[in-house]
Amino acid sequence: MDFLSLFVKDFILQLQSPTLAFLIGGMIIAALGSELIIPESICTIIVFMLLTKIGLTGGIAIRNSSLLDMVLPVACAVIVGILVVFIARSTLAKLPNVKVVDAIATGGLFGAVSGSTMAAGLTVLEEQNIQYEAWAGALYPFMDIPALVTAIVVANIYLNKRKKSAAAQYIKQESFSKQPVAVGDYPAQEDYPSTRQEYRSQQNGDADNRVKIWPIVEESLRGPALSAMLLGLALGIFTKPETVYEGFYDPAFKGLLSILMLVMGIEAWSRLGELRKVAQWYVVYSVVAPFLHGCIAFALGMIAHYTVGFSMGGVVILAVIAASSSDISGPPTLRAGIPSANPSAYIGASTAIGTPIAIGVCIPFFIGLAQAIGGL
Amino acid sequence: MDFLSLFVKDFILQLQSPTLAFLIGGMIIAALGSELIIPESICTIIVFMLLTKIGLTGGIAIRNSSLLDMVLPVACAVIVGILVVFIARSTLAKLPNVKVVDAIATGGLFGAVSGSTMAAGLTVLEEQNIQYEAWAGALYPFMDIPALVTAIVVANIYLNKRKKSAAAQYIKQESFSKQPVAVGDYPAQEDYPSTRQEYRSQQNGDADNRVKIWPIVEESLRGPALSAMLLGLALGIFTKPETVYEGFYDPAFKGLLSILMLVMGIEAWSRLGELRKVAQWYVVYSVVAPFLHGCIAFALGMIAHYTVGFSMGGVVILAVIAASSSDISGPPTLRAGIPSANPSAYIGASTAIGTPIAIGVCIPFFIGLAQAIGGL
Amino acid sequence: MDFLSLFVKDFILQLQSPTLAFLIGGMIIAALGSELIIPESICTIIVFMLLTKIGLTGGIAIRNSSLLDMVLPVACAVIVGILVVFIARSTLAKLPNVKVVDAIATGGLFGAVSGSTMAAGLTVLEEQNIQYEAWAGALYPFMDIPALVTAIVVANIYLNKRKKSAAAQYIKQESFSKQPVAVGDYPAQEDYPSTRQEYRSQQNGDADNRVKIWPIVEESLRGPALSAMLLGLALGIFTKPETVYEGFYDPAFKGLLSILMLVMGIEAWSRLGELRKVAQWYVVYSVVAPFLHGCIAFALGMIAHYTVGFSMGGVVILAVIAASSSDISGPPTLRAGIPSANPSAYIGASTAIGTPIAIGVCIPFFIGLAQAIGGL
Repeated sequence: MDFLSLFVKDFILQLQSPTLAFLIGGMIIAALGSELIIPESICTIIVFMLLTKIGLTGGIAIRNSSLLDMVLPVACAVIVGILVVFIARSTLAKLPNVKVVDAIATGGLFGAVSGSTMAAGLTVLEEQNIQYEAWAGALYPFMDIPALVTAIVVANIYLNKRKKSAAAQYIKQESFSKQPVAVGDYPAQEDYPSTRQEYRSQQNGDADNRVKIWPIVEESLRGPALSAMLLGLALGIFTKPETVYEGFYDPAFKGLLSILMLVMGIEAWSRLGELRKVAQWYVVYSVVAPFLHGCIAFALGMIAHYTVGFSMGGVVILAVIAASSSDISGPPTLRAGIPSANPSAYIGASTAIGTPIAIGVCIPFFIGLAQAIGGL
Repeated sequence: MDFLSLFVKDFILQLQSPTLAFLIGGMIIAALGSELIIPESICTIIVFMLLTKIGLTGGIAIRNSSLLDMVLPVACAVIVGILVVFIARSTLAKLPNVKVVDAIATGGLFGAVSGSTMAAGLTVLEEQNIQYEAWAGALYPFMDIPALVTAIVVANIYLNKRKKSAAAQYIKQESFSKQPVAVGDYPAQEDYPSTRQEYRSQQNGDADNRVKIWPIVEESLRGPALSAMLLGLALGIFTKPETVYEGFYDPAFKGLLSILMLVMGIEAWSRLGELRKVAQWYVVYSVVAPFLHGCIAFALGMIAHYTVGFSMGGVVILAVIAASSSDISGPPTLRAGIPSANPSAYIGASTAIGTPIAIGVCIPFFIGLAQAIGGL
Repeated sequence: MDFLSLFVKDFILQLQSPTLAFLIGGMIIAALGSELIIPESICTIIVFMLLTKIGLTGGIAIRNSSLLDMVLPVACAVIVGILVVFIARSTLAKLPNVKVVDAIATGGLFGAVSGSTMAAGLTVLEEQNIQYEAWAGALYPFMDIPALVTAIVVANIYLNKRKKSAAAQYIKQESFSKQPVAVGDYPAQEDYPSTRQEYRSQQNGDADNRVKIWPIVEESLRGPALSAMLLGLALGIFTKPETVYEGFYDPAFKGLLSILMLVMGIEAWSRLGELRKVAQWYVVYSVVAPFLHGCIAFALGMIAHYTVGFSMGGVVILAVIAASSSDISGPPTLRAGIPSANPSAYIGASTAIGTPIAIGVCIPFFIGLAQAIGGL
């Protein structure tokens, strides 16, 4: 059989996997107007359990494996995380009707990782009996944090430059009071300090124009998703959680994921409306970006595959976490780090299109790609 | 051993089944004033999981079985659902101090199906190793929707007739302002439009007196309980959810049901007070109706048993869903469809008496009946 | 190997058990400022499931065992529960800057039992394959209720005495209006009736100075934790819950406990601040008390071990429930029973120090002690 027919056949088969089926099911029942609701507190505990389990898996695996094997894949993850932001800066940000800060924030969110998408990827691999390094889930923070940090730093550098010229403009315009300032992709006035006094005090605070990186890293690490995962990782490395892992976190994983997939399908559908409010280029970006990012990660992963024997399953996971966009930890970090960016733009693009594409299309795509290449 | 002693012995044994024991336990601790509370969000997710599981079971079964076997049982379910409303219309509605619309709504609720009662029935059958068709749970919507639709249609036809004569009366009485209107089982004035203007605009809206059936069906299908079940059904038919079904939804079923039974026992006790506010005839009705409806369904089911080989376990399930009264999806549909009916009347009767009788008495009764007949 | 090295080695090993590791993990992530939150409703259902499971275990065990074996251990539990309050009355209450009512309430809380600590103890024993009587969990209410009742009775007797002398003082001081009353450990004025009229009506209500014991017992029994446990106990004794026990409550136990341990670790850290507001003697008390109470119970348990063959595992459980301090049912009962006591004092001491010491230090300590003695 040739590459394409093999690929298509495999793709269709995978849509029947419970993980993807629940995602699509959620979108369909939301489209049909179902009143089914999964309570917020249930979603919170499911995310906690999924990420704790991924952390535990990783921690137990790290305890029993050589850290050296991880170096190259970790480096790939970091590179992809940073690269994604610069891709958004040099493509999405240049498009008409797209604000630069919004584009950078969107790039940060698409570079950051979705725990649920990763969980879905791991599960689909297992459903198909494809081997991967047990510590592969631990790559998560190494792509997530660099992406968020890069986005916030790049956005702040941009905003500082803008502010200076805006300050110059502002002083000039002061004589023509009440005149609107916004021109082109220039940020909306409400995002700017409203009185001169505020403005100056902010300028003083920014005396040194450098963005502090550590608080952003810290904020990312403290988010509920990464906290749970790192807790699991630490417990896996330093304690003996095997009984509770095998008797509780591991067996419940797939089932809890199916509920979360349903919620994400429902959520994706209900967020579609938000996208109408922003430029259509976000739609194009959020369809193309998961593939593009995944392919870059896949290519880098293949280097690790040929040089240090990183498994093909591991390459697929690297591609899937690159294709994913953050849904839990990313948005609050970005909101705090780039307050002038419009959340409707980046959350809408990620939740309504990016995530369903990453889970429903990219996971089968990259598994199919790996299988067609013959590595599986 | 004779019929009766066999029946009584079996009945007592079944009250020790965990499912029924938790229901009775809930009533007892509520009666003793326990402050034990199961959070709302937990009940929601339990109902979701139970009904998704029932749907998945049904869907997987339908995929592997002949649809022809289902035709007669489905027809029985539809007949019982419609019949139950007309029974309430011609018995409960005629009793003193019972409003006609309240009686019709109560009939609709008792004709509709309780997912939890059905789950309890399926579980008690399994606990006793009694065989039944795996798709039996899929009979649910075929009794539920016809009952709700019939109740709303019958109530609206009745109200339209009343409205016309009321309109005539209203115009006559206008000269005697401030005089109360309510006479006999005539609906309370607050349920009627309060100003003449409102009244007329409503009359215009009702220009064609026909009740639209499709919106009622749609509303039923969109409710959280039926949504979850139909989602499970669709996933069971069109995808391959076996791994998540066997590893998650199926093993958790009995345990989650035990928690829900406890909640229903507590709820039943706390609703008893509401019943005091309405005519005692509701108490009589809600004790007798589950048996009566169950017996009708049992008789119809026996026809399917002898003609198309519908299993005795299936007959018991048909009787149990007929005996059950809706607790989740029914009330909001009825509230929207028959806004002038008094929810205390129908919800009190169903939750405080109908459901405990259906679960705690009718399930053992119909199993005992089937066993005594010798079909098991 | 000698006693000490064996003990230390065992102690360190036990900190790696998942139960203790999650507790310590929770304290660490809270200290690092993690935003991880486990929803309230999830904690509620976990506590329900843990205590129902402990109750079911006890009930099933009692059904199959001689009640006579339980008499002496039950007596030990009652003695310890009462003794603990009198120890607090004659030590903590005498210390400077400690109010007598606060000390008595704290004693009550440390005498009362924590379901989670007991669950942790049972689990660590099981993780180490140490045998214990399956009904040991049923000792809970026999220590819990006597402690709470004794605390409330002792506090009220003390307050009644104070009130009489205060009334005398009050009448004297009436001429010197606006003058503050509080002297020494005399209860703060806001806890006292603010107007003369209220005061007198209260005096009349207290006409007979006796504290009613039954309402306190009833209040304890109605609390959510004890309700769940007694429900499980009753279901275990009178029904056949084995299927749901083996398929649901038992396998989920350790995993759910791990989540609860995490929550308790987070909670302990966040409560540390409250302790700063009260006398440091509370810190000393809450470090020493769990050991002291545990040792008394251990000694009494050893008597039962040598006379009626109570297992060494059972002795450890008796010591652990004595070392524990109530976190769920105790505080509301005490707040209602001794309204003039300061909750910050007793809840802070118990949650921030008492519980982590009981779980993280006393459980390994008493297991180590039992093993070193050679009984295991």
